[in-house]
Order: sequence, then structure tokens, then C-alpha cells
Amino acid sequence: MSSSIYLDYNATAPVRPQAAAAVARALEVGGNPSSVHAAGRAARAIMESARESIARLIGAPAPDVVFTSGGAEANNLCLDSAVAAGSRRLIVSAIEHATVTETAKASPAEVEYLPVGRDGVADLGWLRERLAGWDAADGRPFVALMLANNETGVIQPIAEAAEIVHAAGGWLHVDAIQAIGKIPVDFQALGADTLTFSGHKLGAPQGVGGLAYGAGATLVRRQHGGGHERGRRAGTENVPGIAGLGAAAEAILTANADWSRHAAWRDAAAERLKSVGAVVMGEGAPRTPNTLCVATPGWTSDLQLIALDLAGVMVSAGSACSSGKVKASHVLVAMDQGDLASCAIRVSGGWNTTEADWNRFADVWFEAYQRFAARRKEVA
Amino acid sequence: MSSSIYLDYNATAPVRPQAAAAVARALEVGGNPSSVHAAGRAARAIMESARESIARLIGAPAPDVVFTSGGAEANNLCLDSAVAAGSRRLIVSAIEHATVTETAKASPAEVEYLPVGRDGVADLGWLRERLAGWDAADGRPFVALMLANNETGVIQPIAEAAEIVHAAGGWLHVDAIQAIGKIPVDFQALGADTLTFSGHKLGAPQGVGGLAYGAGATLVRRQHGGGHERGRRAGTENVPGIAGLGAAAEAILTANADWSRHAAWRDAAAERLKSVGAVVMGEGAPRTPNTLCVATPGWTSDLQLIALDLAGVMVSAGSACSSGKVKASHVLVAMDQGDLASCAIRVSGGWNTTEADWNRFADVWFEAYQRFAARRKEVA
Repeated sequence: MSSSIYLDYNATAPVRPQAAAAVARALEVGGNPSSVHAAGRAARAIMESARESIARLIGAPAPDVVFTSGGAEANNLCLDSAVAAGSRRLIVSAIEHATVTETAKASPAEVEYLPVGRDGVADLGWLRERLAGWDAADGRPFVALMLANNETGVIQPIAEAAEIVHAAGGWLHVDAIQAIGKIPVDFQALGADTLTFSGHKLGAPQGVGGLAYGAGATLVRRQHGGGHERGRRAGTENVPGIAGLGAAAEAILTANADWSRHAAWRDAAAERLKSVGAVVMGEGAPRTPNTLCVATPGWTSDLQLIALDLAGVMVSAGSACSSGKVKASHVLVAMDQGDLASCAIRVSGGWNTTEADWNRFADVWFEAYQRFAARRKEVA
Repeated sequence: MSSSIYLDYNATAPVRPQAAAAVARALEVGGNPSSVHAAGRAARAIMESARESIARLIGAPAPDVVFTSGGAEANNLCLDSAVAAGSRRLIVSAIEHATVTETAKASPAEVEYLPVGRDGVADLGWLRERLAGWDAADGRPFVALMLANNETGVIQPIAEAAEIVHAAGGWLHVDAIQAIGKIPVDFQALGADTLTFSGHKLGAPQGVGGLAYGAGATLVRRQHGGGHERGRRAGTENVPGIAGLGAAAEAILTANADWSRHAAWRDAAAERLKSVGAVVMGEGAPRTPNTLCVATPGWTSDLQLIALDLAGVMVSAGSACSSGKVKASHVLVAMDQGDLASCAIRVSGGWNTTEADWNRFADVWFEAYQRFAARRKEVA
């Protein structure tokens, strides 16, 4: 796929070379971090060094970072913990990822949705009002609000939300999976009680992720067995994956990338699409610099995806989480985008994306659009 | 550690070169298996090919294999599924791994222990009798009996247990994690309803494992989100880890190793230890050919481990699952081994072990033993 263009970083980012090298080194070391002998100690050292790196990247104390098998497990763990701590009603934003929403729905708690505006930003006025009228019988308030949306890139006002939630004595869960590595993320400054991350969204391998948690959160054990992760998550740790995560975090910290250039490339491409009527979702809101969610009236997402894929340009329609299905995005429905919700694609770059990639995407999209428009004209 | 000897395969086996190469290739491909574009399809192809390989290795239909983040999650999933299916009393063998026993104890069900004899073999007479008097109010009988014990290597009579359990309408769960790759494992011939595996015990990376399940089992979802693994386990799959698992399975199938040689090397080493009074645990029972659990009266496990580690020989005391703690093995306690339970070490070889490794272990152990015996004599 040398001539292909990968602009689906929000699904899985290509693995950074530093991460791949760290995985290979960890595979050479072998050893079980729970073993007391030399190989075990070497494995543990790799793991704890990686913990320091990801902790530094997200502004959390290293001892408060727990590794899991990925973002899905981390989000599941946070919601299960809140329910175990007595939350009987969970407020999740209407644009949360399925690993949050579906976990809330599967729990014994009631689920309520924090609405977003047409720009994709959570309605904090609604939240303030809702929490002011909170019924103590519903237990401690729990609110899940992601830092950056996976489909639109829209960044949420987390620090303000934290003030509101904490004023009500609540627990704010922040899924930061799509934000880390693209915008500064500081667990302590944000005021989150729990914050989740995922390796494969930031250039580490799939199969590793985790969370940071503060004094406002108590974690349950979802997985039973040995005393790994200081008793918080049983099961031999994924040392090579964790090593890759640590190396990716170091690479992000070291590179200190100029993301404003990425935003400029993205916006230049978006202007070309907008010239024929395409609409950028969340355009007026602060967004991660790598993400473009754009809808073209009348041209369904799946047809766009297929046309682009045939030309070697890989993008997606919303989240990549439901095995090939293309359906109207719940995020865009929550943003009240009507029929546009079925006509959107998500284009997402990342650490290895160039201006040429965005230009090529716009070129290919434009050619496909012209064919689509010509066919539509014939039919009309 | 070029001059060191690693004989702790039952904790974590060194990664097979074929597995490391497969991980590296998968990291190059990138892509999210849920994405519909070319990179996504490539990732999915890697994953499904690996599923075929591990399925062939364990004698299960590939569609009945589910990948998880490891053996711990797989065992947790099977027990949670049984409880969700209505089992209100779980029978687990007294020598099960903590990921089985602790999950059972954390569940709302009652837990009962299937005893083993002094040779470490489960007492099927007890099981038959117990199930004959089963109270229907306790729901469907569930029995967890591992195929090979992680500490002693003792192989359990699974096919006979399956007959007994099925005659009572029950569900037999088989943790085969320590058996796969060392003895033939055939899911269908064994008659297990669920059977678990772990990558890092057979030369694949840590962070990947899974299970096979038959018509006698229904799985719950423990992790919520997207429709991955055909709806059975949400979360983006660990494609590089899965690729490594598939490659390790292929390597095992292709190599067709002569394990009787390993057993002979092990037994020769054991004879030297026995000459000064060491006792081999489970010696009279069928055992995996790579494992030696040996106790030396009066010489505690931790002192043996330290002495061996200083000489570059890495072994363990029982399971490696509790972060550096050395305590009396529950397996040896269940085998009624008295004080010997605190004086045992586990020596376990594997795919890359040589006769020289076993000889070197015996040499080093013998020297350390002589120093220990001399000190004891001085003190006496």
C-alpha cells in the first residue's frame, strides 16, 4: 500500500517506530514482572519505566496509573467502579464512545444523557441545573464527559465540568483517548477523577491502555486472580505492549509536534470540500487539530468510503467499532444534524501525516464527488 | 544474561522467534480490524488466520475461539458466564489457578473445592458422589478442573471428569493454559465446555489469550462497547499479540517437538536432587514433560530461589502471580504435603530448553545445597 494514504488515525494510529522498537526489545527480555529473579526484575523495570512515561504525558502521578488491556477495559472499569461505589444514576454525554455508553446501559444504574449543542459541545448549563436538583437517593453523581470526541474532534470544557460535578460531590470520568498526543492533557489540571487512555490511538500497539485515578475515585477489581497492578487488575501484564506505550509517550513528549500545521492542512482540505456544499461538523468549536468530520448532503457515508478506498485513501464513517457496519452516527444525531448524520466521513491524521496526505485526500475526494454529482444529474 | 539459565517457562515462556517476527509484521500493517478499508481488512486477515492456527492447535472449531487480553480474562469470563447462566454453587479443584479460584470467591455463588490426592490428581470419586447428591436449587453444576497444574505439572483426568460432569447436566471448565504446547490438547476429545489458553505460556507475547467454548456453554459479555469478536468481547483486538499467538501455534504444530527428551533431562536432574533427600511432587502421576516441582526438607523456597538467582539460574516458587511474595503453595497444601509446601521450587523448561540447561540447574542447585547443608551442620 505504498501509494495509499492512511487518514484513519482515530481508528488506529500507525505504530511509531520507537514503539515498535520498544516492543521488540521487550520481547527479547521476556520474563514475568511478578517473578523475583533477574528476568522478572528486568520485565518489571520496563513496565515501571513506561508507567513513568505515560504518567508524565498525561500529568498524573505514576502510582495512580493502572494499565489495562486497552481503552475499552479502562472505561468499563471506571463505570463499574462508580456503580460499585453507589452511583445509581449515571450521566453520560450523548457523544460518549460505546465503551462508556454501553457499559452504563449494561449496569444496574439508570442512564441519563448530557446533551450537546449543534456544535458538539456539552451543555454545561443543563448539567449544572441537573445536578442542582440531584436526588440523594440516586447516590453519588457520576458524569462521563470525554475530552475530545472521536468522530468530530470537538474538545469538551472539562475543567468547567469538573467544577460543576465536584460542587455536587460527584465523580467526573474523562475518556481522553482521542485527545492524548494531539492536545496537551493534564490529569490534575483538568480535575478529572478518572481519565482513560489507549495505546493504539497514540502510536503504541493495540492491546494496551489504562487509566489514572485520583482521590475522588475508588476502583473495583473487575478481573480476579493475582495481585498485579498493586491489586487493582489481576493478570500478567502485557509487558511488550506497555513498553510500546511508554516509548510512544516518550516520542510524543520529545517530538513536541507543531500541531497547528496539521490543523492548517486539514482546514485547507476542508475549504475545498466546503466549496461544493460539504459541511464541517463542529467547525465552530475547539477541535483536535488532526480530525475532520465532514458531511456532504445526499452522498451517503458508505458510498464515500468505498470511492475513497478504491483510490487508496483510507478514512472512516464515525467510529470503527462495529465491524463493518455503516450507520448514522450517534454523535451527529446528538448534534441534531438530521440527514447529514448519514452523509459524514471522518478524516483523521496524526504523527506521520503530511500536507501531501491531506491534499491527496482532497483531490481524490473531489474527483469522486464530481463523478457522484454527474450521476446524480443524469438521474435527475 | 548470556550465561544465565531460564527455567521458569511456566511463569512466562521466552517468545518464539516466529512469534516475535509475526508481531513485528503486524505492527507494520497497522490498521483496525473493524475498519472497512484496506488496512482494516489486512488487520482482520491477520487476526482470522491466527484464530485458525490456535484453533487447530487446541482442536476447536475456529468460530468457537474468542480472543481476550490473556488467560486471566478468559478464566474470569468463563466463571462469570457460568454464574450468569444460573450456577449458584461452583466446584473448583483445590489446585486451580488464582484467576479461577479468586473469581469464584468474588462471585455471588458458593464455592466448593474438589480435593486432590497426595499425588496431585483430582479425586473423581468425590466428584461423582458430590454430583449425585446435587441440589437442583443450586442451579446447573459447574466444575473447574485444570488440564495441567502450573506448579507440579500434574495432568488431570479431564475426559473422565467431563463424563461425570455431563452426566449431571453440568458445565466443565478446563484451564489448559499450562498444557498447550507441552502435551496434545484436543478441546473436542476432552469434552470441555470451556477451555482457556494464554499466549505467554506457549511462546507468544503477554497480553493475549482466549478460550474455546462449545454448545454446553453460553458466554456473557464482561466488557461492553462495540461488536468485536462477534459481540462476545468489546474492545479493539490486540492484533500484534494475536498475530504472535497464531505464529507460536503454527511453530508448535510444525516443530512437533520430542517432549520425551525434555522429560528425560528433567528426570535425570531430579534424580540428583533426590539423592540428598529432595522430594518430587506429583512424581507418581502423569505430568507435563517440562515441569519439576521439588521440595527439600528444611530448605525454604525463598532461600533456594535467592541462591539459584545469584548463580544465574531462574526458577520460581509456585506461581509467579503475587508480586514477589513467597508463601506456602496452596497446591502443595491441597496435596497434603505439610512442611514440604514451604520448601518447594518449580523448575520449568520449554521450547528452547536444552539438556545442558537442566544439567546446569542441577549443578548449581547441588552446590547451593551443599553450602546450605554445611551451614545447617555448623548450627546443629
